[in-house]
Amino acid sequence: GSGVSAPKIPCMERKRVLSYADRAELPKIHPLASKLLKIMEEKQSNLCVSADVTSSKELLQLAESLGPKICMLKTHCDILKDFTPEFIQKLQAVADEHNFLIFEDRKFADIGNTVKQQYEGGVFQIASWSHIVNAHAVPGPGVVKGLGAVGKPLGRGCLLIAQMSSQGSLATGEYTKAVVKMAEEHSDFVIGFICNSKTIEKPEFIHMTPGVQIQAGGDLLGQQYTTPEEVIYNKGSDVIIVGRGILEASNILEAAESYRKSGWDAYIRKVGQSHQ
Amino acid sequence: GSGVSAPKIPCMERKRVLSYADRAELPKIHPLASKLLKIMEEKQSNLCVSADVTSSKELLQLAESLGPKICMLKTHCDILKDFTPEFIQKLQAVADEHNFLIFEDRKFADIGNTVKQQYEGGVFQIASWSHIVNAHAVPGPGVVKGLGAVGKPLGRGCLLIAQMSSQGSLATGEYTKAVVKMAEEHSDFVIGFICNSKTIEKPEFIHMTPGVQIQAGGDLLGQQYTTPEEVIYNKGSDVIIVGRGILEASNILEAAESYRKSGWDAYIRKVGQSHQ
Repeated sequence: GSGVSAPKIPCMERKRVLSYADRAELPKIHPLASKLLKIMEEKQSNLCVSADVTSSKELLQLAESLGPKICMLKTHCDILKDFTPEFIQKLQAVADEHNFLIFEDRKFADIGNTVKQQYEGGVFQIASWSHIVNAHAVPGPGVVKGLGAVGKPLGRGCLLIAQMSSQGSLATGEYTKAVVKMAEEHSDFVIGFICNSKTIEKPEFIHMTPGVQIQAGGDLLGQQYTTPEEVIYNKGSDVIIVGRGILEASNILEAAESYRKSGWDAYIRKVGQSHQ
Repeated sequence: GSGVSAPKIPCMERKRVLSYADRAELPKIHPLASKLLKIMEEKQSNLCVSADVTSSKELLQLAESLGPKICMLKTHCDILKDFTPEFIQKLQAVADEHNFLIFEDRKFADIGNTVKQQYEGGVFQIASWSHIVNAHAVPGPGVVKGLGAVGKPLGRGCLLIAQMSSQGSLATGEYTKAVVKMAEEHSDFVIGFICNSKTIEKPEFIHMTPGVQIQAGGDLLGQQYTTPEEVIYNKGSDVIIVGRGILEASNILEAAESYRKSGWDAYIRKVGQSHQ
């Protein structure tokens, strides 16, 4: 790819923003992060839809209709009232067909020995189908080690939660710094962050931001919204995660296209400017 | 109860340690905390067993055999390979028969709108059967508000995770202080803490400590163990949570009795000394 030659270019005045395609070819990139970046470039989408619905039929319909617009689908398997292994097979088929990754937003947050079992076993067997999971760093590095013991042999990746979009979150300051350090120390499994803005200048890491709506605002339980433009262009994140902004729209397909375009335009503007 | 008269006793030189029975009668105690303290006094047990097994049959056998020794059974429903509503009915019957509370150790850690659905819905319907759940404070107060919206009408209670037993945990210092403040501000639903030692001098709050083994030590994924004596007598906690120390013993019933006795003896010594 064209990105391989990037290190040979002498330093420019303004910090160069690598394209998703360039980053996919970085020598130290995790294979799953590379795969995601290639999907993003190919589909011209940095949109992850949060499929917060409670029936598997509804989730499959969403995946089927929004599949062409997204780079990733975020799930909460534990809010589905009718989860079955057959549903997962169908979801995997839709993900293959439309070329997006599955991200189970489990927010693992227990000691290593426990998260290992929660990731691999139980009714959900998350490790067997979810390309990406996330974890809170609050238990210490054992949480990443426990998840990695299961996920690494399967080629899975993990996002650490460096910041949260909700009001009064304790993931700030020193906490966030400790999360970034933990990610750097486990970059054979941690491929990036859930965050409000870019937390580290290493283009191998993917930054994903929830709480995105075209209209800024909030909900009654502390959620706070930021716009796609703000997240991608100003905050330096890579992927916008959109839930209610799309799911509660009168036309979800139009809404998804509108978010895809907003996120992509902001990215093009950012990469374009850095190359001027 | 005898505890009602406690406030009339003049202050003594040493800080008075209230008995579990005294605390159960405190005017501001949460009904579920009161129920737990009464069970502890009646069964002479401050032992919570962590039932980290992967089959529901095995879990029911554990609950059946250890039921008389414990005040609480801690579950991870998402590591059970064969979870069903029928299993839950049986577990509830065993809990009623042997008079212990059920504590699903879910460690909720998402924004309010999401934890609400995770607590109430999905395959597990945790709110319908678990007397107590726990949550990380990292998302901010929305996590407690979201859970409380579901749990308060059902008379449920929540423990906030103020500290963790695992190596390198980020739940320390200012983080722990923020957790305690959040608990105080939501004491109509938060009945206490998961912690390594007592975090606040309010006897209405229950302090529960994991990572307990008769032999101090650790595992390969960062877990660190403390003894029952240390936890109850020196660290001022109320309930010891024991998993592998019992489950991996050659005779689990004898092991459970040994932990029950250690925890109870430490409590008696602590209360006794404060009354001398």
